Amino acid sequence: PFQSPIMTQTASLKSNKKIVVIGGGTGVFNLLSGLKDYFDKLSAIVTMADDGGSTGILREEFGILPPGDVRRALVALSRSDNKTMSELFNYRFKEGKGLAGHAFGNLMITALERITGSFEKAVDEAGRILSIQGEVIPVTTMPTHLVAELENGQIVRGETNIDIPRHDGKLKIKSIRLEPKATLNPRAGKAVAEADIVVIGPGDLYTSLLPNLLAEGMTDALKKTKAKVIYFVNAMTKYGETHGFTASKFVEVMEQHVGKSVVDYVAINTAKPSAARLKPYAQENSWFVEVDEENLDPKPVPLYADLIRSRGFIRHDPEKTATLLKLIS
Amino acid sequence: PFQSPIMTQTASLKSNKKIVVIGGGTGVFNLLSGLKDYFDKLSAIVTMADDGGSTGILREEFGILPPGDVRRALVALSRSDNKTMSELFNYRFKEGKGLAGHAFGNLMITALERITGSFEKAVDEAGRILSIQGEVIPVTTMPTHLVAELENGQIVRGETNIDIPRHDGKLKIKSIRLEPKATLNPRAGKAVAEADIVVIGPGDLYTSLLPNLLAEGMTDALKKTKAKVIYFVNAMTKYGETHGFTASKFVEVMEQHVGKSVVDYVAINTAKPSAARLKPYAQENSWFVEVDEENLDPKPVPLYADLIRSRGFIRHDPEKTATLLKLIS
Repeated sequence: PFQSPIMTQTASLKSNKKIVVIGGGTGVFNLLSGLKDYFDKLSAIVTMADDGGSTGILREEFGILPPGDVRRALVALSRSDNKTMSELFNYRFKEGKGLAGHAFGNLMITALERITGSFEKAVDEAGRILSIQGEVIPVTTMPTHLVAELENGQIVRGETNIDIPRHDGKLKIKSIRLEPKATLNPRAGKAVAEADIVVIGPGDLYTSLLPNLLAEGMTDALKKTKAKVIYFVNAMTKYGETHGFTASKFVEVMEQHVGKSVVDYVAINTAKPSAARLKPYAQENSWFVEVDEENLDPKPVPLYADLIRSRGFIRHDPEKTATLLKLIS
Repeated sequence: PFQSPIMTQTASLKSNKKIVVIGGGTGVFNLLSGLKDYFDKLSAIVTMADDGGSTGILREEFGILPPGDVRRALVALSRSDNKTMSELFNYRFKEGKGLAGHAFGNLMITALERITGSFEKAVDEAGRILSIQGEVIPVTTMPTHLVAELENGQIVRGETNIDIPRHDGKLKIKSIRLEPKATLNPRAGKAVAEADIVVIGPGDLYTSLLPNLLAEGMTDALKKTKAKVIYFVNAMTKYGETHGFTASKFVEVMEQHVGKSVVDYVAINTAKPSAARLKPYAQENSWFVEVDEENLDPKPVPLYADLIRSRGFIRHDPEKTATLLKLIS
């Protein structure tokens, strides 16, 4: 495929453009932890639909919003001179009746919610304690859950049941919604309105990205903002969500939800990892996303580039990503 | 009784004398939280014999040293611009299977112990997170429990069982020991050696103060130090521990454990609180400690003064206490 000349530049000076990253899950947190070295003003808008593991238990027992994605976004934005605090925040108890399995940061956010009386204030306080660069904003402050309908009509309730998956992973997801409906956190709307660049993804399409776009008011906010909106197509498919997806299929589903002419750019990775790096992914039925250039429209503008790390886990490389963001800003 | 002229002075300038406070329990933490406004260099040596509540559960489930007293000492020394963190540290979960009853700070110390691999390092890290003034030192790093023998020969095991008490509270404690034996943390020994003033108490004699002196090496360290050693006699008796004790009896038991000619001064409160303030204490069988001047020897030098707060809980007043410490330094 066509190689844009952008990757010959380097992400040298720290930019003061306002970057808003919308997502949740490992893809986005990996990106955020890298972007903080290149951009001063970072906002992370994170999904509130998680209901698995430690987060699920705390939601049930305390009736709070899900702390898990917030916790990981906070750690991603935490300044690097604060290693122990980050490690502590992600520490997961291995012993103790009722403690085992809980991430320490989830417990901190829960306790702060009780002390401050507000989940958002709790997130802000946790941000201060971690001395994060930027801010973490829950996409909504209403408790909600994710519900998917599969192509065979089966209903799957709960983010974690879609994510794992508890259904035939080859089946496509026909539609996805929030139950009950949730409206956009005004602070998230403000961040989108004031952004220079809005980054969607990378991340699990149905369980990490779309839950943000399903918050009522988010697609309007994205339509109205003067920011450039860029969607990062995943480098790998995910069984149970995007099995068999090519790059164009990712873009198609994204535009189905966010609307036409909202996304300005789609960033598509063209570097295919070695067979050795792909092998553990194959065991989880996760495959390299084929770049089907022929099916991609000229709008949103596709940006083809080597976007992934050169070794290890197949994840977006912060420097390569930052370079691309600087170029479109 | 004789009134020393000391209380006419005020604790104005912050002193740079090295103060080591030995104890555990509310009395000492109350004192520490006040002393930090008057002294720059504060070390708190705290007992490691607690085994009740949240602390007891964590000792059992994680096999760690008891975090409870350490937590409260850390909060006491935490700088006042750090309110939320202190509040968070003392926050006690009310909901959640296995979480309810746990103090958040105890969980943080537990997680830090697992991350750093050492209880002492965990305490130091927690101190940094709370940005404490001074340091908190566990009196020993060996797991141990408190065992008391009552005057009727009954054995009571566990600090919490003595403290509550689970025995006839009118019975005197004949002897008290640590099982298994525990040796002094070298850092605690160093702090005592380098101190200008060592403060013992105020606090529950058998469950908060003596467990520190029972750590092997502590009495030697107190004998050898050039510091002035001052013992703060409690203002109120404690049922199950010091029921019926007069001031001289407190001093007698202290000297039985620490040895003769080790304590230089005993600070004795002479101000008797109003009947209204004493009333809730009477319900817990706690009584004002009578100042039996006639039974007190000239050595250790008794310092008689109004040492308690003028209202509220009957606790030592930080300013009055600080004034007295400055005078003997």
